[in-house]
Amino acid sequence: MSDLESGETAAAQSPGRRARGAGGGAAARRQARSTPKFESFPNIVRQLPPTDILSEEAIEVIEANADTLMEEVGVEYREDAEALQLWKDAGADVKGERVRFPKGLCRELMKTAPSQFTQHARNPARNVEIGGNNTVFAPVYGPPFVRDLNGERRYATMEDFRNFVKLAYLAPAMHHSGGTVCEPVDIAVNKRHLDMVYAHIRYSDKPFMGSVTAPERAEDTVKMAQILFGEEFVDNNCVLVSLINCNSPMVLDGTMLGALKVYARANQASIVSPFIVGGAMSPVTVAGTLTQVLCEATSAIAFTQLCRPGSPVIFGTFATAISMQSGAPCFGTPEPAQVLMGAAQFARRYNLPFRSGGSLTGAKLPDAQAAFESANTLWPAMLGGVNFMLHSAGWLEGGLVSSYDKFIMDCDQLAAHQKMSAGVDMSENGQAMSAIREVGPGSHYLGCAHTRENFQTAFFVSQTADNNSFEQWEIEGSKRTDHRANDIARKWLEAYQPPEIDAGIDEALKSFVQQKKDSMPDAFT
Amino acid sequence: MSDLESGETAAAQSPGRRARGAGGGAAARRQARSTPKFESFPNIVRQLPPTDILSEEAIEVIEANADTLMEEVGVEYREDAEALQLWKDAGADVKGERVRFPKGLCRELMKTAPSQFTQHARNPARNVEIGGNNTVFAPVYGPPFVRDLNGERRYATMEDFRNFVKLAYLAPAMHHSGGTVCEPVDIAVNKRHLDMVYAHIRYSDKPFMGSVTAPERAEDTVKMAQILFGEEFVDNNCVLVSLINCNSPMVLDGTMLGALKVYARANQASIVSPFIVGGAMSPVTVAGTLTQVLCEATSAIAFTQLCRPGSPVIFGTFATAISMQSGAPCFGTPEPAQVLMGAAQFARRYNLPFRSGGSLTGAKLPDAQAAFESANTLWPAMLGGVNFMLHSAGWLEGGLVSSYDKFIMDCDQLAAHQKMSAGVDMSENGQAMSAIREVGPGSHYLGCAHTRENFQTAFFVSQTADNNSFEQWEIEGSKRTDHRANDIARKWLEAYQPPEIDAGIDEALKSFVQQKKDSMPDAFT
Repeated sequence: MSDLESGETAAAQSPGRRARGAGGGAAARRQARSTPKFESFPNIVRQLPPTDILSEEAIEVIEANADTLMEEVGVEYREDAEALQLWKDAGADVKGERVRFPKGLCRELMKTAPSQFTQHARNPARNVEIGGNNTVFAPVYGPPFVRDLNGERRYATMEDFRNFVKLAYLAPAMHHSGGTVCEPVDIAVNKRHLDMVYAHIRYSDKPFMGSVTAPERAEDTVKMAQILFGEEFVDNNCVLVSLINCNSPMVLDGTMLGALKVYARANQASIVSPFIVGGAMSPVTVAGTLTQVLCEATSAIAFTQLCRPGSPVIFGTFATAISMQSGAPCFGTPEPAQVLMGAAQFARRYNLPFRSGGSLTGAKLPDAQAAFESANTLWPAMLGGVNFMLHSAGWLEGGLVSSYDKFIMDCDQLAAHQKMSAGVDMSENGQAMSAIREVGPGSHYLGCAHTRENFQTAFFVSQTADNNSFEQWEIEGSKRTDHRANDIARKWLEAYQPPEIDAGIDEALKSFVQQKKDSMPDAFT
Repeated sequence: MSDLESGETAAAQSPGRRARGAGGGAAARRQARSTPKFESFPNIVRQLPPTDILSEEAIEVIEANADTLMEEVGVEYREDAEALQLWKDAGADVKGERVRFPKGLCRELMKTAPSQFTQHARNPARNVEIGGNNTVFAPVYGPPFVRDLNGERRYATMEDFRNFVKLAYLAPAMHHSGGTVCEPVDIAVNKRHLDMVYAHIRYSDKPFMGSVTAPERAEDTVKMAQILFGEEFVDNNCVLVSLINCNSPMVLDGTMLGALKVYARANQASIVSPFIVGGAMSPVTVAGTLTQVLCEATSAIAFTQLCRPGSPVIFGTFATAISMQSGAPCFGTPEPAQVLMGAAQFARRYNLPFRSGGSLTGAKLPDAQAAFESANTLWPAMLGGVNFMLHSAGWLEGGLVSSYDKFIMDCDQLAAHQKMSAGVDMSENGQAMSAIREVGPGSHYLGCAHTRENFQTAFFVSQTADNNSFEQWEIEGSKRTDHRANDIARKWLEAYQPPEIDAGIDEALKSFVQQKKDSMPDAFT
């Protein structure tokens, strides 16, 4: 291995080291590793074929079952007379708040939704494609707690929120700034959406998500997007993707419907997500859960098209399974992975972008359980063909906690999946015939021309894994992965520089936020 | 969630609790969890379609490149005049120890190898099918060190060896007893194979692997198998699967060839495995590495058929990538996963069983790195279609260490993959229409008839994950996953009971071992 450790080879591998005048050796390598590099990857374009977990026959059975239930049981549209009227006009059977659907009505209505669309970022280089073979990673959404840089578990604050926006901005494989990266409980409930949307705009230039906790907060989000992008641009382009959870089983409530209508009418995308704890909010079987998911998702997706035909929408599924022991949701287990892959097949069948997956776990610490469970959702999500992956970094403790350490660990995994999804390079250089001819039996490839030419980019390099010898690892403090991730999170936040923003736009945004905040007293519910 | 926690529901879920007179409550649940249950799963029959990472065009390019190199560069068969003569007779071009192969010769010779075969265990219920859609999990192989139950890293002993055999015997999803589960360095090198084979036979009733460190040790293994199964049975059936690594690039050495010939002629299976650290022992690219793997594997597989046409053989690939920083091998990264999936495609193309995968990691501790990296090999292995998975539990620190804690954690993951691979239940019960009809919008499934009927087996239950509330987890000691796994390993070893064995056979085995040991002085090289 000595060829690799010579100063000459190290310098050839990393021109940057020479530029800093470090001629080689351990000190130079440490220096190079300690200076964070922030490249930014475009969204993934998957080269691996999706895995079809359901046979064509199974697909047809589940679809027919869903059709039967849509007609027989139906879905409740609560606290929203307008929604009921829209369904009545569309030909559904509306009794009270219960809407029953003639077979095929929702599938027919869904056809006007685009199969793929661009979500625009304020930096066009950060635009993302949603749908098709594309995969977009977005951070954790919703936790009221953080596990902070000192390992303390406490309520999240607006400062934490800004920190996670900054980390997501810096992480190469994080394509999206997300939404409620943590719940800033130090800000009034009726005002925090303003600070959150402003933070996404100001501290990142990646695309972001809108508020859904009340229709007027959705409207505020749209207005801030209009200040940023211009009214006409927003009306013609998707600049917001927002998360609309169904109240499974088979209910859409007034809050969610209110936000859904605001976004659809503004031509902005919603992710319509049945939020399922299998065994509690759906049947204990995969096929039964998929049937229910299909009813809920297709009904709500069709509803977006009643609000504005052609508006972008994402077929979502968030699935977990209830623990027999504690009643808590379990993550990274086989059945939710099967639900995910099955739902993805239906989204492909209906030519709709699909949301699911994430680095989900029930673990309390960023330990082996956290890693196994996260990987056990990431893999089926990537192979199932997820287009938009919320919770792809930072999620801990069943979504109660945003973890700094885990955010870094997860981002490392996302970068690995980005490389994995790119498929195999079959170029002449990729075929490497010259190398095999040059080296021949019984020798090694460390010094051959092809290796020297490709070494720097050939292999994925993890930022959080330790691949040193046991002895070297001991000398460096016998650190666990989460400790190494903690070091990185600190370094990133130290190195963070906000992206440029037009001063006039920034002023207008700040003034909008201030005026809105001044217009109402603080409310904490 | 209270329905689930009532004594009645708990008792209905677990009849065993009633039998012990525990009416319900936390104490009864703790009691039930603390008593290990040792069911045993048959090998996996995968219901998920394999993922093809290479296009048909890519397959043809790599195969053509391999053909070119087989003819032009060839493979060295070292220290084995008989092997060279066999190749000369088969029509290869032999110059010195270099063997060059006319295009298609090895593919033609491979055709007599079975596409699937049964490896027999002394307990027929533990027989495994190798090939086709079957997957067999086998434990870690080769580490000279252990990380023991006190967390100490030290040289492995014969007692450790027996302990890992016992754990593999008890683990439900471990289908195989494996081979060198750790290297018992307290026993003389020239004698330890006798104790190892005896331990597999005596302390387990699952199928096992043979010694490959010298031809005479392979012969001893065959003789012990003949004592156990009878000579004629061994000549007609596979009872041993043994690991033959190629010395990549493009070399087979005398030791490996000697063992390979012994097993093939005894009609026993070898796993022919190019052992690749990409960038050192193969080109730095995936396509280049696959080309070399194809040369090495097809040549050695063809050679088994020269020794005995029709003898079982497994196409193996062990792939990792070199670390730019340390020169050490990296695990769980994208490129080796791509090599694995690509090689699996070639094995399918040639109708041969395939070996690869495992819970591989470079981590020094069973922490998040260990879990991420292990999962990042397990998933592509399962979706790539691996038939025989060595190192599927216990591997730590790049294969230098067998870890008790990680063994338990990994076995839990294997059980999850067993459930995942079973696919989706599309029976009437699986479709769960009655449940959705019964529950309807806005209610929950916790108490419905379908849930009560299916609750006990509906969801995979992890043995090592903690899905309690944060508060409960704190009360129970804020344990990390590896600590919980440690508790389980201790309980399993305490509960272990050896399977019955015929006293005459046991006596004959012990006497063979003693006579062999007495016949030579200890040697430590």
